[in-house]
Amino acid sequence: MNKKVFVLGGDGFCGWPTALRLSNEGYDVTIIDNLSRRKIDIDLYCESLTPIKPIDKRLSRWKELTGKVIDFQLIDIALEYDVFLELINEKRPDAIVHFAEQRSAPYSMKNSKTKRYTVNNNISVTHNVLAAIVDSGLDIHLVHLGTMGVYGYGTAGISIPEGYLNVTIKKDGIEADTEILYPANPGSIYHTTKTLDALLFFYYNKNDKLRITDLHQGIVWGTNTTETKMHEDLVNRFDYDGDYGTVLNRFLMQAAIGHPLTIYGTGGQTRAFIHINNTADCISLALQNPPSNGERVKIFNQATETHTLIELAGKISKLTNAEIKHIDNPRVEDAKNNLKVDNDNFLNVGLNCIKLQDGLLEEVMEVAEKYKDRADQSKILPTSKWRK
Amino acid sequence: MNKKVFVLGGDGFCGWPTALRLSNEGYDVTIIDNLSRRKIDIDLYCESLTPIKPIDKRLSRWKELTGKVIDFQLIDIALEYDVFLELINEKRPDAIVHFAEQRSAPYSMKNSKTKRYTVNNNISVTHNVLAAIVDSGLDIHLVHLGTMGVYGYGTAGISIPEGYLNVTIKKDGIEADTEILYPANPGSIYHTTKTLDALLFFYYNKNDKLRITDLHQGIVWGTNTTETKMHEDLVNRFDYDGDYGTVLNRFLMQAAIGHPLTIYGTGGQTRAFIHINNTADCISLALQNPPSNGERVKIFNQATETHTLIELAGKISKLTNAEIKHIDNPRVEDAKNNLKVDNDNFLNVGLNCIKLQDGLLEEVMEVAEKYKDRADQSKILPTSKWRK
Repeated sequence: MNKKVFVLGGDGFCGWPTALRLSNEGYDVTIIDNLSRRKIDIDLYCESLTPIKPIDKRLSRWKELTGKVIDFQLIDIALEYDVFLELINEKRPDAIVHFAEQRSAPYSMKNSKTKRYTVNNNISVTHNVLAAIVDSGLDIHLVHLGTMGVYGYGTAGISIPEGYLNVTIKKDGIEADTEILYPANPGSIYHTTKTLDALLFFYYNKNDKLRITDLHQGIVWGTNTTETKMHEDLVNRFDYDGDYGTVLNRFLMQAAIGHPLTIYGTGGQTRAFIHINNTADCISLALQNPPSNGERVKIFNQATETHTLIELAGKISKLTNAEIKHIDNPRVEDAKNNLKVDNDNFLNVGLNCIKLQDGLLEEVMEVAEKYKDRADQSKILPTSKWRK
Repeated sequence: MNKKVFVLGGDGFCGWPTALRLSNEGYDVTIIDNLSRRKIDIDLYCESLTPIKPIDKRLSRWKELTGKVIDFQLIDIALEYDVFLELINEKRPDAIVHFAEQRSAPYSMKNSKTKRYTVNNNISVTHNVLAAIVDSGLDIHLVHLGTMGVYGYGTAGISIPEGYLNVTIKKDGIEADTEILYPANPGSIYHTTKTLDALLFFYYNKNDKLRITDLHQGIVWGTNTTETKMHEDLVNRFDYDGDYGTVLNRFLMQAAIGHPLTIYGTGGQTRAFIHINNTADCISLALQNPPSNGERVKIFNQATETHTLIELAGKISKLTNAEIKHIDNPRVEDAKNNLKVDNDNFLNVGLNCIKLQDGLLEEVMEVAEKYKDRADQSKILPTSKWRK
């Protein structure tokens, strides 16, 4: 029998390609989503640059192309605990992949309403998932999408390890070595919610011995994966707006429509990156390499390279002759930072890294180029400020 | 003009005596409470051993005795953000003291419903308070009641510092000293919520420069303070049940009714303690010693002594000839631990510690003795288990 997996948030930017990948690999996939990402677009008067289909059309096309059935359940896990638990008890999944969180830092910083939504939604969903796994009594492997943003930017040029840090404490005349969760240093309310998630995982793993993998992902770029390219009805979202557009995709789209590449502040900020196809690869690898019973939370850094924003803009400008424009940084952050990231855990289990140099920038440009007439230029610049 | 202070959760076990103390000291006090503690008693078929009066009777008696007016607002801060924010904008408090959280570890571990209530309520209240302070634009000092339970039991016999820990990182051929928030190691869902609170404080302090004091309190014992002793209508709650009764008060009440002193497990667990009168002292001292603008979150350990449970039971048995009985430990915790706690911050600002040896055990025994006929013996033993 095929392994059963729930993909929470499986209609979103990372969730959708992952659900298709897992289905393609033979998992029996159930997507659970409250479709909040599409609804937030409505409130922001925005749309994906790519014309994404309703979830039912996506799934019927997938079935037609591959013969594989993905079930869809419209459930708000933050609010419908009993319905969610019932589904777990009925389907008895082997694993749950959890993408069901509000994932934009700028959106989380817009105002107290979006801050509160982000905290209440993200924490309730994560905690409800944990409580439901305990309630079910089943041995379910939980794979959660975290963020590199839980770490801040490291200390003294030391490469950020994967979740855990060895430290020496000297106090009261005693010197002791110990291992701790890497100290949290989030840069937005959104990132803060992922640091809270990490503590919930720590506790449920300690008390209830839940098997949990937490993936601290870099900024995703790219649009399509092996599966979403199979038909236009399967196309993934492409966000270019100031709230949900991730930096590299925003640059690519700006280049396509002849808009200057807008760098927030100096551009000296270093970020970690990963291509969307590697996101799907990583989830698949995480499912194949679960922690054993009694093992602590398994933490992987899910990023393949780091770049400063100015470097990125330079690369794209070279490709496209786009102009580069610095605008005031709406974020509260250092003007410049040195970010190094360990990612041996995924390399050791066989991740084949897709890098910017692999020519995919051009591919993404083609997507941006193809749909550029759908762009609303008034949505490109940032509107959220970190501080009043 | 008197300084204005909001006391969130000001009808509860720590909140009520603190509200009276601050009113007595000349603060203009507003209590905000959803009265959830009284409502949970209804659900648990329990009552305070002491006959506590409704909040309106408490406050009218206080006014009659002292001429001082404490305002009361029935607001659920987790659910009524706009009402709470409006009250802040109207009254413009100088400080907010935040006790408005579900505070029982056993209650938080009863089942998924109480776990979820504890997480959702505590995190929403804390985050709503933070967001509302930012929304108000006012410079309000937030004083929060945390718990020693955020720390776990320390490392290698090193005394637990007040919130921050100096560590040395050696990695990648680099050696660097840095200061971190003391690594969280909570022992229940309730304690976990306080570790999440700490990260929310860290972030709002970093981003919005909020002035925040977080008080990591030990287990409170005792019943009355200088103020609650002024009249029987002002009496504080005394919880003796397996969920809300704190260990020392539970022992004293068991002794009073001739019930064996029930120790969970070996009794080798060390805990930190503080008398309720010192709780009120500490909040007053924290308000008098706020962090300055731009200062990081100020963290105090609010505990005056540590004891193992078996030591405590021994003391009370000696006083009363009560029998000691070991029962299965419902908690997931080490059978024995070595807990040392720094508390210089409060000593340095003048806290006059009330210790068990100061004869107050007898005073609390008198309270237990006086009201023992109100006790429901079926509520004494623990019913919550940490693991199924």
